[in-house]
Amino acid sequence: MRYFDHNATHPLSAVARAAWLDAVERLPSNPSSPHRWGTRVANALDEAREQVAHLLGCHPSEIVWTSGATESNNAALHHLSRNTSGPVLVSAIEHPAVLAATRRWLGDRSRTIPVTAEGVVDIAWIEHQLRAGLIAGVVVMAANNETGVLQPWSELATLCEAHGVSYSCDAAQWIGKLPAHLIGRCSLVVGCAHKFGGPQGVGFLKGPAKLAPLLVGGPQEEGRRGGTENVAGILSMVAALRDRAASLPASDSSASTALDIRLAWRDQFISRLKTLLPQTRIVGESVPRLWNTVAALMPGTADCRRRWVVKLDRLGCAVSTGSACSSGREQPSHVLSAMGIASGESDRMLRFSAGWETTEEDWNELLETIRRAAIDLGAGPS
Amino acid sequence: MRYFDHNATHPLSAVARAAWLDAVERLPSNPSSPHRWGTRVANALDEAREQVAHLLGCHPSEIVWTSGATESNNAALHHLSRNTSGPVLVSAIEHPAVLAATRRWLGDRSRTIPVTAEGVVDIAWIEHQLRAGLIAGVVVMAANNETGVLQPWSELATLCEAHGVSYSCDAAQWIGKLPAHLIGRCSLVVGCAHKFGGPQGVGFLKGPAKLAPLLVGGPQEEGRRGGTENVAGILSMVAALRDRAASLPASDSSASTALDIRLAWRDQFISRLKTLLPQTRIVGESVPRLWNTVAALMPGTADCRRRWVVKLDRLGCAVSTGSACSSGREQPSHVLSAMGIASGESDRMLRFSAGWETTEEDWNELLETIRRAAIDLGAGPS
Repeated sequence: MRYFDHNATHPLSAVARAAWLDAVERLPSNPSSPHRWGTRVANALDEAREQVAHLLGCHPSEIVWTSGATESNNAALHHLSRNTSGPVLVSAIEHPAVLAATRRWLGDRSRTIPVTAEGVVDIAWIEHQLRAGLIAGVVVMAANNETGVLQPWSELATLCEAHGVSYSCDAAQWIGKLPAHLIGRCSLVVGCAHKFGGPQGVGFLKGPAKLAPLLVGGPQEEGRRGGTENVAGILSMVAALRDRAASLPASDSSASTALDIRLAWRDQFISRLKTLLPQTRIVGESVPRLWNTVAALMPGTADCRRRWVVKLDRLGCAVSTGSACSSGREQPSHVLSAMGIASGESDRMLRFSAGWETTEEDWNELLETIRRAAIDLGAGPS
Repeated sequence: MRYFDHNATHPLSAVARAAWLDAVERLPSNPSSPHRWGTRVANALDEAREQVAHLLGCHPSEIVWTSGATESNNAALHHLSRNTSGPVLVSAIEHPAVLAATRRWLGDRSRTIPVTAEGVVDIAWIEHQLRAGLIAGVVVMAANNETGVLQPWSELATLCEAHGVSYSCDAAQWIGKLPAHLIGRCSLVVGCAHKFGGPQGVGFLKGPAKLAPLLVGGPQEEGRRGGTENVAGILSMVAALRDRAASLPASDSSASTALDIRLAWRDQFISRLKTLLPQTRIVGESVPRLWNTVAALMPGTADCRRRWVVKLDRLGCAVSTGSACSSGREQPSHVLSAMGIASGESDRMLRFSAGWETTEEDWNELLETIRRAAIDLGAGPS
């Protein structure tokens, strides 16, 4: 099986597996317990917090462990609702968790940020709104989960800082794929372990030291998140993240052969796919995108994406129709809608998302499988 | 090291470890994904849901996976706040997560249920309130985490059913220690993996099929809890629970040598402890308590519990001053306060909590260690 659905869940990495086993063996206790076994666990969590803070460029006291991106995003929106007043700008292409949490916690305080036809938030529009005043916060993801299109989080962080406005950045699809050492500049940052080889059910939120708790209970996490910490999950996540960070450039200006190679594989796949099936359209093709993600509008009849997925699946390739969180439903993608793509087109979208370990041969095999599927589906080669 | 802090965290059991490893190996994908890898994961979660429902005596559609007891309790109180109106009775001895969630979600709609001097909720008081009408809900745990005192959840379930009132039962300390095959009768039931040998960071909430979601996002869990499910954590938790349930009586009337033996070890320890240090007082001694938990007011000066913990720790036994969730703070236990125990006494409390694998020899060694600690602390033997 060739697995091209890493944006949904990246299988556990070897270092993450080892770190998890090590933690349940060496640190089987509760970090809040008053004995040495407990203290040892609390110390390990402190160290992990320092490591994540170092990787994001923030202070350890700004990191709160959570159960994943959905909880982190819910907590971020909850925090904004309690600590700001006035309109909050939320991009139209956020993850369903952000959009749902926005409805829950901001209600009619939210304003939708439009995106360009290429799927990038309209930064001029945001700037205009900020200049007009009254805006309390901005919510824009770092990289889109469906299209892989990168968003201008660094410029937004600068802009929001200048206007004294909170900026919440869902970086679930960025962290672990691209350098994140400056992302701690955003007021709130969401990270999610199972998007980069850590376990499911664990994540973090970078936020103010006085983050308003969404889950209330004991004094864990300095009162910012009740509940016994998922110690093995956290240490496993941090091991995966450090491992991945070691492969990524250490600064914005560093050259990165590892990234360049992967971008080249993606682009070679796209080029060959368009040669094979010329009617294929790549979403956001003219703008920078994650090296691992290709969102393609496939040739075929309306709503053919299911047939593509099933056929590719039978032929040995696991791909997705879009966000795993949405793929249970057969609704048009809100991301593509926001880009002005009609539902008759967007329901032909497939998402191919590679992992760090995906090879050139895997991409080649995916293309070959698409070729065979296209013949079976009568979708070409033309 | 002899570990007597299982009520804080029970180390991962061997079957739970094996199930986790099996899951990350065989089911490394996202249950919401549209390909066979995803479907296989979704099927495994369905099967796990059926198994938990079977163990609790409820329908699989009533089980929602969560990140643990704190989230489950927050979600339960959130649900009550949205789906009931009128006063909700909440016991004075609930876990801090329940009390905090009560303040957050019910505010002045909550009324405190008093407890007896032995630490049992006053069921006559509750019945009186229910008869007077207007009560919308009852919140009483199954077994207290600090004292181990069992609460009359079965009678409360019957009573609440008769009055058409929701009953939320935090069973984090009951499930996995005592038979739970009837606890699904309660409207809401909270379970927590790391209290019975499953991993930290995972739990469940038994609740109505239309549970109001606390964490919003994708369509996971039929819209009752957004976020990618912690697949390996869930399967590991269910493996631990099934393993434990296999050792427990299958019905209320079944004899259980395994439980009887463990009760006898606990009581032998108590008896010898009182012989060794006659001023020791056992909290809730005259009422039924968990077979694994001993809450003892130790002889010594005021607030001597820290010194006891440190000394016992150095001598090789890990024990707690009470709830791990509270033990970071040096405040009097709200549980003992509710029982009418003055803070000068309650700050002498130690909690010894065994696990299923704890042996008679472990209990004997704990006693011997207390004997040596008492000498060093000048607390006896008298």
